[in-house]
Order: sequence, then C-alpha cells, then structure tokens
Amino acid sequence: MEKVKFGVIGMGNMGSLHAENLLKMKEVELKIVSDPRVDEVMDLTSTLGIPKIAANWGEVVEDPEIDAIVVTAPTVLHYEIISSAINSGKKWIFTEKPVTHDLRSAKKLLELVEKNNIKLQVGFNRRFDHNYKKIHDIIEGGKIGEVHIIRDVTRDPEIHGVDFLKGSGGLFYDIFIHEFDIVRYIISQEVERVYAVGSVKWEPRIKELGDYDTAVVVLEISGGAIAVIEGTMKSVYGYDQRLEAFGSKGSILILNDRETTTVLSDGNGLLLDKPFQDVPPYRPLRHTKHRYEESYFEELYEFVRCIVENKTPLPTAEDGYKANLVAECAKISSKENKPILVGNFEGI
Amino acid sequence: MEKVKFGVIGMGNMGSLHAENLLKMKEVELKIVSDPRVDEVMDLTSTLGIPKIAANWGEVVEDPEIDAIVVTAPTVLHYEIISSAINSGKKWIFTEKPVTHDLRSAKKLLELVEKNNIKLQVGFNRRFDHNYKKIHDIIEGGKIGEVHIIRDVTRDPEIHGVDFLKGSGGLFYDIFIHEFDIVRYIISQEVERVYAVGSVKWEPRIKELGDYDTAVVVLEISGGAIAVIEGTMKSVYGYDQRLEAFGSKGSILILNDRETTTVLSDGNGLLLDKPFQDVPPYRPLRHTKHRYEESYFEELYEFVRCIVENKTPLPTAEDGYKANLVAECAKISSKENKPILVGNFEGI
Amino acid sequence: MEKVKFGVIGMGNMGSLHAENLLKMKEVELKIVSDPRVDEVMDLTSTLGIPKIAANWGEVVEDPEIDAIVVTAPTVLHYEIISSAINSGKKWIFTEKPVTHDLRSAKKLLELVEKNNIKLQVGFNRRFDHNYKKIHDIIEGGKIGEVHIIRDVTRDPEIHGVDFLKGSGGLFYDIFIHEFDIVRYIISQEVERVYAVGSVKWEPRIKELGDYDTAVVVLEISGGAIAVIEGTMKSVYGYDQRLEAFGSKGSILILNDRETTTVLSDGNGLLLDKPFQDVPPYRPLRHTKHRYEESYFEELYEFVRCIVENKTPLPTAEDGYKANLVAECAKISSKENKPILVGNFEGI
Amino acid sequence: MEKVKFGVIGMGNMGSLHAENLLKMKEVELKIVSDPRVDEVMDLTSTLGIPKIAANWGEVVEDPEIDAIVVTAPTVLHYEIISSAINSGKKWIFTEKPVTHDLRSAKKLLELVEKNNIKLQVGFNRRFDHNYKKIHDIIEGGKIGEVHIIRDVTRDPEIHGVDFLKGSGGLFYDIFIHEFDIVRYIISQEVERVYAVGSVKWEPRIKELGDYDTAVVVLEISGGAIAVIEGTMKSVYGYDQRLEAFGSKGSILILNDRETTTVLSDGNGLLLDKPFQDVPPYRPLRHTKHRYEESYFEELYEFVRCIVENKTPLPTAEDGYKANLVAECAKISSKENKPILVGNFEGI
Repeated sequence: MEKVKFGVIGMGNMGSLHAENLLKMKEVELKIVSDPRVDEVMDLTSTLGIPKIAANWGEVVEDPEIDAIVVTAPTVLHYEIISSAINSGKKWIFTEKPVTHDLRSAKKLLELVEKNNIKLQVGFNRRFDHNYKKIHDIIEGGKIGEVHIIRDVTRDPEIHGVDFLKGSGGLFYDIFIHEFDIVRYIISQEVERVYAVGSVKWEPRIKELGDYDTAVVVLEISGGAIAVIEGTMKSVYGYDQRLEAFGSKGSILILNDRETTTVLSDGNGLLLDKPFQDVPPYRPLRHTKHRYEESYFEELYEFVRCIVENKTPLPTAEDGYKANLVAECAKISSKENKPILVGNFEGI
Repeated sequence: MEKVKFGVIGMGNMGSLHAENLLKMKEVELKIVSDPRVDEVMDLTSTLGIPKIAANWGEVVEDPEIDAIVVTAPTVLHYEIISSAINSGKKWIFTEKPVTHDLRSAKKLLELVEKNNIKLQVGFNRRFDHNYKKIHDIIEGGKIGEVHIIRDVTRDPEIHGVDFLKGSGGLFYDIFIHEFDIVRYIISQEVERVYAVGSVKWEPRIKELGDYDTAVVVLEISGGAIAVIEGTMKSVYGYDQRLEAFGSKGSILILNDRETTTVLSDGNGLLLDKPFQDVPPYRPLRHTKHRYEESYFEELYEFVRCIVENKTPLPTAEDGYKANLVAECAKISSKENKPILVGNFEGI
Repeated sequence: MEKVKFGVIGMGNMGSLHAENLLKMKEVELKIVSDPRVDEVMDLTSTLGIPKIAANWGEVVEDPEIDAIVVTAPTVLHYEIISSAINSGKKWIFTEKPVTHDLRSAKKLLELVEKNNIKLQVGFNRRFDHNYKKIHDIIEGGKIGEVHIIRDVTRDPEIHGVDFLKGSGGLFYDIFIHEFDIVRYIISQEVERVYAVGSVKWEPRIKELGDYDTAVVVLEISGGAIAVIEGTMKSVYGYDQRLEAFGSKGSILILNDRETTTVLSDGNGLLLDKPFQDVPPYRPLRHTKHRYEESYFEELYEFVRCIVENKTPLPTAEDGYKANLVAECAKISSKENKPILVGNFEGI
Repeated sequence: MEKVKFGVIGMGNMGSLHAENLLKMKEVELKIVSDPRVDEVMDLTSTLGIPKIAANWGEVVEDPEIDAIVVTAPTVLHYEIISSAINSGKKWIFTEKPVTHDLRSAKKLLELVEKNNIKLQVGFNRRFDHNYKKIHDIIEGGKIGEVHIIRDVTRDPEIHGVDFLKGSGGLFYDIFIHEFDIVRYIISQEVERVYAVGSVKWEPRIKELGDYDTAVVVLEISGGAIAVIEGTMKSVYGYDQRLEAFGSKGSILILNDRETTTVLSDGNGLLLDKPFQDVPPYRPLRHTKHRYEESYFEELYEFVRCIVENKTPLPTAEDGYKANLVAECAKISSKENKPILVGNFEGI
C-alpha cells in the first residue's frame, strides 16, 4: 500500500500535536510542514524526523506530491489557505475548527467545497471523544426517549493571549463552536433560534475587543428541545466540559474525566483528583496526558481511513458552516439583546 | 412558658405535613385546622389529636385565641385569606409559596404586611435544606470568589392534576418560584433581566391553560452574574434538584440526596440508588422519607422560634413578592419571545 | 390505648438519646430513669420533662408500674441488671450492645431469657439503618447470587476514654460486635472459623489493657463465604462504616452517608463533604444530625411496636450471644495467633 | 543513536501486546520473535512488520545481535529461558510476572541474576499505572501519615482456561502476585507474616488442581501495618481492582477506571458505566481500550530508557522473588490453616 502524503500548515500547539499523531500512523507519510517561525520550529521538526519545513504555507499547498493537508494556521487565514489549496487541486483537507472566523467566509468556503467535490473534515474532535460518543449513541438508541432539554457547560482552563483572541473569531466562534456542533451531533437536529447573554469577568481587554469571556446561550432546536450552553474562557480548577440530556425516558450526563480515580479522605472531606487538563504546551515525544488526547488521534485517523477507503469524512464543511451560523446568531443576539431566528441568517 | 396557639388553613398534603410538624414542637399548641372537605379530613385530625376542625377558613382567621396561622390553601385563595387574617388582627402568618398567584396581589399583600407590621414568613423551604444552606454559606464565605454563573435544575416527579395547576399560578409561579428565590438567596443579589423559553412536552392540556411543563429561564443578576434555570414538571427518574455556582475562585455544586448510598455492580455497570422523592401522599404518623423532610420541619420551627423570641422570620413577604416579580417577567418573556427588564414591572 | 410505661437505666449519651426518642412516641410513657450521677442528670431530665430520676438502677427494675426497661448502663453491669429485672418479673427488655461483656455471662443470660420467656432486644441498630437494610434485602432477593466475599470496614472517629474501654469489653466486644452481627444479619448464616490480628496504633494505654485499637478479622461463614472485617478505634476523617458483598451475580456496596451532597472544585480537585459523624455529646432538644440517627429511633420504635402487638422483637438475646461468641473467638485468635473454630466455644 | 535490538519470546496475548508497544518506540528495533505456533502467529508478525519469527525460543536467546529479550512464555518455562539467556550472555531481560512459578526456582534465578550482574525487570505493570503510582506518591509524601491498614481487592473478569492455570503457578502465584508486589511497593516495607483462606466458587476443576478461585490473604507488614487482600478469578461485572490505605492522617483509595463518565438516570436509579476491562484478545493494530493499557507501555518504555541510559530498571528480580515468597507462604497457609512467618521460608 502506498502511503498517504501529508503536509501540515502551522506548527503551533495543535499543529505539532497533529503532526506527531500523523507520524504514528503507518498509512501516512508526513512530507512537509510550514510555519513562519522556521527557526523556532526547526528543533521540533528535526526531533520528530519531519523531512521538510517551509516558511510559507504556499509551499505546502502547491507541493504536487502532497495528497492531504492539515490546516492549523490562525483561524483568520483558514479561508485563504483552504481556497488556495482547492485551487491547487488538493482534494483532502483537514482543518481545525472553526472552518473560518465569520459566517460569510464559511458560506463561500462551503460553496467552493461543494463545487469542487472536496473532502473536507472539520476538527470537531469531541465527536471522537468516548464520552460524547456514548451520549450520542444512547440518545440515538432511544434510551432516554425524546430529548426535551440539553444542558451543556464548557470552561477553558486559561484565556489564550489577547493576540490569539483577535484572530480566533472570539468566544462564540472559537470556544462555543464546539458546543454548537456537539449539540447538533448528539441530537441530530438543527438549531432554530438563539439567545445569548455575554459578560466580561476575567480579562478587561476582552471588552475592548467587543467580546466576552463568559456567556450563556439558549438554543431552540428543530424537534422542540431546548439546549442551554454555559461557558467561560477560564476556570481555576481547570478544564470543565460536561453535558446532560434530559428526555421522556430518563437522562444521560457525562462528567469530566479525571487524572486518577483517587479519593483522599481527611478532616476536610473527600478529595477527588482534578479533571484532566487541556492540551499542554507541546513538547515533542513527551506528552502529558490530557482530556481529549484520544479524540485528537481518532479524528485524524478517521480522516486517513477515509482517504485510504475513499469515503467522505465527518464532520463536513457543512457541519462547520452550520456551527458558524449558530455562532453568528449568538454574537448578534448578545449585542442586540434579543433572540435571533437562525433562518434569517441562512444563505448569508 | 405559654404555648403558641396555631391554626392551619388547608389540610391537603402540605397542610397535614405542617400540622404534624407543629404537633412535634413543645412550644406549640395546634388548636384548630380548617378544610372544606371536613369528612375526608376528620380521620386524620382525630388520629393526630387535633381538637377542632372547621369547614371554613374564616373560623381560623377569626378565632381570637389563635396567635399564628399557617396558610396551605390553594394559592388563588392566599390573598383573600391572608388579608382577612391581617384584618382580624393576626400578626404571625406562615404561608406556603407562592405568596399569591400573580404579581398585582403580591404587591398589595406586601403593602398590607408592611403597613400593619405583620410578621409573614413564606414557605421557601429550600433555604432550610442542608444542601442549599451549605451552598449559600460557601458563597457567603467567599470560597468560590465572585459568582459568575449559576446553573440550576428542577424536575418534579409527576405533574399535579390539571385542576391543581389551574389554581397554582402555573409553572413559573408554582415550581420555578423556588428557584427564583433560591438564586436570590444564595447570591444575595437581585434579578435585573429575565428571558424565558417554555414548551409543552408531557401534558397537552397544559397547552390549553396557556402554560408550559418544560422551560428554561435566564436571569441577569445585579452584580453581573448570569443564572440559568431549567425545569420540568415531570421526570421518570423522579425528583431532581441540583444547583451549581461557578466563580472566580472555584465552583460549588449540590447533587440530589439519594435514598441509600448503595452501589450495585453487575454486567450493566454500577447502579446507584434513586434520588429521594417528593413529599409522598400524606399518611398520618407513617412517613416515607423524602428529600425536603427536614427543611419543612426546620422552616416552621424557625417561624416558631421567631414568635417565641419576637424576631422577624425569613424569608419575608418582600422575598415572596420579589420571587413573584421574576415569575411574572418569565411568564411575559416566554409569551413575547424577548428578554424583560425586571425594573419595568416593579411597582406594579 | 394504654401507654407502655418505660424506665431507662443509665443516662449517659446513649441513655439520653433513647430517652428523648421514647418521649417522641405516642405509645410510650417514660416514667423513670436512673443514673448514679443524679445531680448532673437532673437538668436534662427536667428539660425533657421526665417525672422521676433515681440514683440506683434497682428502683427502676423493681418499679411495679414499669412495663419495659432500656438498659444503657456500662456493659459490665448488663448481666446483673438484666438478671435482676428478669427476677423482678420484667418481660420486655431493650439492652444496648453488647448483651454482656464476655461469653460466659452472655450464655447465662441467654439461658435465663429463654427459661423465663423474656422478650429481649439487643441494640444492634445497624439492622435498622437504611443502607444496611438495603444490602440485606438485595442479598436476600438474590440480586447478587451466592455470596462469596464480604468486605466490611468500621472506624470510630475517636477513642472513648480508657475508663470507658475498661468496662466496655474491648475492641472486639464493643466495636467489632456490630460487624459480627451485621455479617450474620446480611447473609443469614453463621460464623464457623475466626482469625484475628490486632495492633495498637493510637493509644499506648490500650496495650496495657491487653486490647487493640486496630484489627483485622477473617470470618469463614457456614455457606462457604469469607468475610473480612477491618476496624480502627479512631479516624481523622471521622466515622467510616462501609460494607461490600461480592457474589456470583454481582456485588453490592454501601458508602458513608455524608452531611451534604456538595462538591467544591478548585485547584486541589473536587472536595466532597465529610461523612456524617457519630452520636454527638448529648444536648437535650438540640440535636446535630448524625449517621445512625434514624436507626436509633427505628430500633426502639420496633421494640415498642412489638410490645403493643405482643410480638418477638429482633435481634434477640441469641443474636447477642452469637455476636459475643465471635468476639470471644477473635480475642483468643489474636492472642494465640491462630484461627479458632467457633464450634469449640459454643456451649461455654 | 543506535537502536536497541529486541527479541520477544512467546507471542500470546501479552507477547503480542509488548511487541506492538516495542514497535512504537523510536529507540527500539524488534528483530525477532519466537512462538511454537509459528503458523498461527505468522499473519500477526507480518502485519506488524516483524522481520523474523522462530519456532524455538533458543533462537532468540542465542541470537548474537539481540541486546534485550522480553519473556512472555508460560510461567513454567521462565526459569529455563531466562537462565539460558543469561548463559548466552544476555544482560537485559524483561520478564512477565511471576518471575517463576515457584519459590525455589525464583531463588535460584535471583542468585544467577546477581552473580552475572543482569538487569532484569519484572512485569509488575501496576507500578506504572497512574492510580497505583499516585497512591504510592501520596503515601511516600506522608499525606496519610503512618499507614495502619491496607485493603486491596482484585477480581479478574474471567477464569483463564484450566490448561493455562496449570502452567501459571495458580491463584497466589499468578493473580495475587500483583497484589503482593503492589503492597510492598506502596508501603516500601516487607511482609512478615501471612494468613490465607481460599475457596472454590466458580470452577470445580480448580479444586482438582489443588488451587482456589477465591481467597483472602492477611499480611502483617514489617512497620506494623496490616494488609488484607481479597481476590477472585472471576467477576460478572468485569475487572475490579481497587486499593485503600488508611493511616494516622487520613486515607487514600483508588476506584476502578471506567470506560466513560456517563451516568444514565431512569426509574432504576443512576447507572454509571462499566469499569474498563482486562487486556482483550489481541488483534494487531486494532486495540480496544483496557484498564492497564498505558501501564504496559510505560513499564516497557522504562526498561528501554534504562538500557539507553544504562540504569537499573525496577522492579527487580529481587522484587520478583519477594512476591513469590509471599505467594508461597499464602499457599502453605491456606493448606495448613495457620499463619506463616515469612522469615521461615527466606533462603529457601
């Protein structure tokens, strides 16, 4: 079997993690990566044994030997990179979430992808996490009956730098985007109306960006369920991602995975170990276990399997667009203090 | 010490429970109860040893020997009963929640109470529950820092009959009212804006009443926190009341109390025992343990202690009015599909 | 209905608790209590409204009006008190555990009880605790199949004074006695062989008494199961009593009840509230909730119901004797470093 | 850096798993494996890309290119294989537990290892499991003070075939061996006296082998702690391995890791997901997540690191011998119904 030749664009934390995962797959040959910070990244790529590093993502996109690309550049560059890749004839694209940083570009991208018959997978890794997958399967299997309510919570351990935030699309596009997708995924229905309330609790400069670090979003779902998502950009006890679905036959919830199952009893009570944390700062070949470790491998391995077997990978560009659509409605709702009908923004 | 003489108006489930609790208190003499269903209630009162039963609540209100009354008649009668009691010179009144079934009557009642210097305690029993008290104390003690988010859930095990619902004030006035109070209680701040989405999932006749059996309410709080309350009138796994508060230094949550701590392991997984259920149908002297058992005793005993020591009992008529205010805003918001500023309804 | 007239012998912590519980029962009239420390106890009895207090337990035993007595004097006095009561014609006796402080006196007492057709209930309150009852019912219902292993743990929060220990019968007779009974109760089988290892970890003076504060006991049960009991006289995190049974179809375990269900999350992890503590130092009419509160009421109320309905209360004097039998074997085993066949000591 | 050349003896479930782990390590070249069932194993080795497979383990042992061997043949062959390897000049040996199937051979092996200055690591993988490591670190850090009691439980999900059992050394040598090691590891002390009770509950043919499928073992530890280990060869709810240590300052326990954190609530109660299961039947490149997955990788990677850095890997042949010593005492104790002093068997 000939190996699938990969290029990775962007060697920040996520790019490095995806690169190391690709190197573990026997079906894959990682031929090139790009990052403007060539000097900083050099050590890493040589330790990992990646044969080539380019300063410019154009080199990856135009490399005729490359079968598939992984896009982990800042979100604001996604549209330009992916559309160039499509123009260069690339058919297999894995992009980090969100597909793009706004709704208009996401729509254009979706059209481009559909017109050119591109296989594009969006990095909604939660769909590949054992807990979220199980909640999806339980709902699909009818075990909790008709879903009435979804309660979702997301907390990041730390605020990324303000520079990152500027290029990220903001709270709804960068962080809540996972939740918008996961709600659609577990219930297999669409969002119809969105109401959002945001506030700034942690970082005053976020206010200057017109963004929030704390928010609540209420989603009315096509089948009549109501979903509530609460999220914060920071949490002193670290990563916190839980979800509950309540239905006519019962409820299902997922708790945080924790580092160990230890319980320490003393005069203060019973202390359970901390939840697993977010992806740690990347160090080649020396990982610290983190919450979504397996899901990052699994999503990419699914992408590779789809290439090998010529199947369409999920979640698609359309899933990416639909999540952006909800993010856009949340953004507008939070500014205008009123619920927003998603239908009014579709087609934009 | 002379005993405090009590009368109880309404000998339904809650009235019977309060009567039995009064009978356990050495400081109290329960002299009279009233209920239009005298024949049905006779057995009960004689078993409990209550000396007198009247068909008409007027007899209790006008009885010159009675120091304090407990109002557990249907909510729609609260205003009439309580205002009559005040006119008859009663100074100590304990009333079940909600104070009244709408906002206007709650406002009038509050004015009457204040003008006549009445000591009125509202039956928000959760304030006397060990779990909610602890969450309040933890927040007050600053252990989770500034509160950013409150996530509250309430599920009743079964829908009360449609007849009950008609006189109850509906989902927001009868069920969510506890949550509106508990949010105010644990954070010691006021609600400023309310957004509510309701739906009918369990009982079509509720739609005919213009009410909901399922709803989500978002509250914006004076200090900048956001609270989300989700609730349903029914749940196949029974009573479900949990609350989480997230703040700058950590989070605190309460789980449901369960009947036992047993864990049964077999091929299906680990089965934990069911949560405690709601107040069971009253049977004199033969109780089934239920979730808020202690809190019902404690709230009433606090009322009695306040009488004995001539102190003002909490929660007050003003607390009752403020909860109704939020309920009214939720009702309007859910009908008009927009957030409602509480300030616009104050003074009504 | 005529009330059952009770006398209570011994107004220490347990006596006071039982007295207050008797005062709550409409079927009971508590006529007299005795305690050598009359002056100390006077306040308490007058607060509770107990009409008479005697310095000498003989007064209770010989009072012709008394139908039933509760024995909560030090264990070393049990045999003398109970045999006197029997001689005085008392037929209904509730005694705290252990029935007596050694095996020989327990045997003599059992013979006396059987010869005189006495209804004697031993205060093994755990049989009336919701958790242990549930484990018993699950096993009896066959849900875990044939029981293979029982794992039992008991930890007291604090060592009672050395004076108390002298009259208590020691670790196996005073503390493990509950476990010996509960194992017999949940599995409805007898102990056949006993192996015990003891050590002194907390209080050197216990060594001087020839006793232990820490021990492990292995019981081989008639049906082929093996039970292991581990226990300590002290624990810094307080009361700890859990039990697990493993069988051919699954396992069942009980955890400690905790004061609240709160979970506090911060940088250290997730902190669950402490387990409920032991019976607190008695203060009349002002209880602090403790682990076995309900079971103390329930066991005594069961005794009262048996009197009213003239039935035989459980656990019986024979149950008391059998627990002492296992305690004796454990004591000998720990001294002689070998397993002891229970059959060799029966009849002694 | 030159790669470390490995040979693996035995390509059953554990051998295959170790082989696949070796293939993931950049520091390793897996040159040869052996298994008498060459035809059965051929597919696997070619899928994995292992260059050579021998029918006879002698080929691995004598291959002059091989730096290090992994021994996963049946336990009865361990002594012969390892001593041959030592005679052939091999210095780095990783062997599955137990080191050998009895005490005498373990002693001889230890002498051989010490005389020849061999670096031998025993596959007590639990020492590399996140939960057991944490309990070790907590105890070592003094957080629970002086350890008084250890409660350990082990249950395998299914009984290996009777053929396997014959060559395995039996319940104490094959299964409890992990517990004997882990007790020594977490408390850093030695076992002084052993008492064991065994029974046959699941598989009558085990009785014919003179072995048990269910047992309880009490260990008296040098520093004065008492450890109790309970174990069964089968459990309907699957793998169950928990441990608790109680000390002067508190207690620490570990629960089973579970497949997901889901909680399903319905009328039966709250259902938590099953514990992770044992190593599943090996399928190349398609693993099912299991409880000790990481620990198997970590122990072998530690072995490789020690080779690269020329350090002594742990646990050593002496650790292997000491665990066998306790297993032997347990075996004798269970037969002779008396506690056995370990010192009496040392040197044998």
